Amino acid sequence: MAIVASGPPRNMEGMNPSPAERSEVRFRVRYAETDQMGVVYHANYLVWMEMARTELCRLRGISYRDLERQSGLHLVVAEVRCRYLQPARYDDEILASAWLDSAHPRMVAFAYEMRRAADGARLATGLTRHLFVRDGKPVKIPEQYRPIFGIS
Amino acid sequence: MAIVASGPPRNMEGMNPSPAERSEVRFRVRYAETDQMGVVYHANYLVWMEMARTELCRLRGISYRDLERQSGLHLVVAEVRCRYLQPARYDDEILASAWLDSAHPRMVAFAYEMRRAADGARLATGLTRHLFVRDGKPVKIPEQYRPIFGIS
Amino acid sequence: MAIVASGPPRNMEGMNPSPAERSEVRFRVRYAETDQMGVVYHANYLVWMEMARTELCRLRGISYRDLERQSGLHLVVAEVRCRYLQPARYDDEILASAWLDSAHPRMVAFAYEMRRAADGARLATGLTRHLFVRDGKPVKIPEQYRPIFGIS
Amino acid sequence: MAIVASGPPRNMEGMNPSPAERSEVRFRVRYAETDQMGVVYHANYLVWMEMARTELCRLRGISYRDLERQSGLHLVVAEVRCRYLQPARYDDEILASAWLDSAHPRMVAFAYEMRRAADGARLATGLTRHLFVRDGKPVKIPEQYRPIFGIS
Repeated sequence: MAIVASGPPRNMEGMNPSPAERSEVRFRVRYAETDQMGVVYHANYLVWMEMARTELCRLRGISYRDLERQSGLHLVVAEVRCRYLQPARYDDEILASAWLDSAHPRMVAFAYEMRRAADGARLATGLTRHLFVRDGKPVKIPEQYRPIFGIS
Repeated sequence: MAIVASGPPRNMEGMNPSPAERSEVRFRVRYAETDQMGVVYHANYLVWMEMARTELCRLRGISYRDLERQSGLHLVVAEVRCRYLQPARYDDEILASAWLDSAHPRMVAFAYEMRRAADGARLATGLTRHLFVRDGKPVKIPEQYRPIFGIS
Repeated sequence: MAIVASGPPRNMEGMNPSPAERSEVRFRVRYAETDQMGVVYHANYLVWMEMARTELCRLRGISYRDLERQSGLHLVVAEVRCRYLQPARYDDEILASAWLDSAHPRMVAFAYEMRRAADGARLATGLTRHLFVRDGKPVKIPEQYRPIFGIS
Repeated sequence: MAIVASGPPRNMEGMNPSPAERSEVRFRVRYAETDQMGVVYHANYLVWMEMARTELCRLRGISYRDLERQSGLHLVVAEVRCRYLQPARYDDEILASAWLDSAHPRMVAFAYEMRRAADGARLATGLTRHLFVRDGKPVKIPEQYRPIFGIS
């Protein structure tokens, strides 16, 4: 029942992406993000993944905010997976990265990795799949926006 | 520097509202709502206040969802106050109540009380002030919606 | 790349669990749970899954709060998957269910389903895998607690 | 019943604190923090205040994490007030600041200001009051930790 591959999901070419294709956000764990177990509550990693995804869009040439505004497109989350390796704690500095996993005109998948900045320990890996949606309906992404997601 | 009155804020007539004017929502504390101190993180009480406010609108004849949809009006939060008396813990059953504190055509204030269901202990009291906003601008609330908020 | 089976994950016997083995929590979507797309932000479904899991423990004879307190055991989330089928909206009544998917002395997996109460529409399905952890270390769950999770 | 002063709360000496006494955290609004009104949900400002408070402790010589660990002390929130002036939006860069408002051996109050980095617009002001608590009981803060909070 090994569901998520043990390494970070491969990108479209089956290789690790070049550094330019990989976002990195650095931030501190908020007290609000902890739970009574003394560690970060697991749902918050999905928010960190969203932050890394936002930065990846910016890195690839468009802010996701502008994409929504200009195009009326939304990347609706169709699926999330997250694997938790080590706990994150309050005030830890976290590095969250995202990169393209795969994409076609109707769908895009991102892969993620969360590390502790102090020692580089890998805390979690994740994957999200998204549909391109406009006016509440799944659509093919218009040609002009395809390069952002590496869709030819 | 006693800022919030020690009792629940009085309503428009200076008396406690009749039971019919006071909402009550009952729910259990979620694990996600706790923090590493082992109690509910303080910002979550504002969400509980929102739940009680939603039920108060329903009690007074309109769901807040329909109000937003029909009228294009939003009750934008202009101010929040919350006083914390005793901690709430994971899996506690909570009773959250809201009632009208004061209102006029441009603004409405609600008062709140959060209790632990098991023993009735008062956990927190709160107050929110809201502006009526449409298309991003403060407006006077249309006549037809005034009775909901006790505005004559 | 169909990762989560299209039906709800099967239970240990490969059959749908009997009603007694399936929890159900009913609650309304909070305004706080929506995002600017006008629907529930996807990470909140993990919190709903936690609520259904808490109720499943209670149904099977112990509150998860007491389990943590009595035994010092924690069910640490090792993996989460969620598949989103239809959006949930503010003030919708939601039914969240959980049931045992599989378990052995070191690990337990739960499956989930979220439905809209009004029409029974299935909104999301999920799966979580948990390790039994005590004093920060993975352990075998003590004999006395095994029946809760259907471990013989 | 004018509740929050229109300016930021004064500090102990009745003057604005010197820059060294004022923390500043910079971060981007997360999609998760927005609601269906298209702006940041109001409860999240309390989390931002917590972030600024954490940085203020660090600035004054101790990480709040270490303070909790070393001393067993917790700064339990007794009261929160927040006044909302302008909405924050997804992907906005925010500057959150905190400074000491007042303190004595049993209690400390912090004041806050949230600005939009792009144009310096003031978005919200806040105040929190905290009790020093150890083993669940209010205590006087030990001498050695008093300078952090400007208590003589």
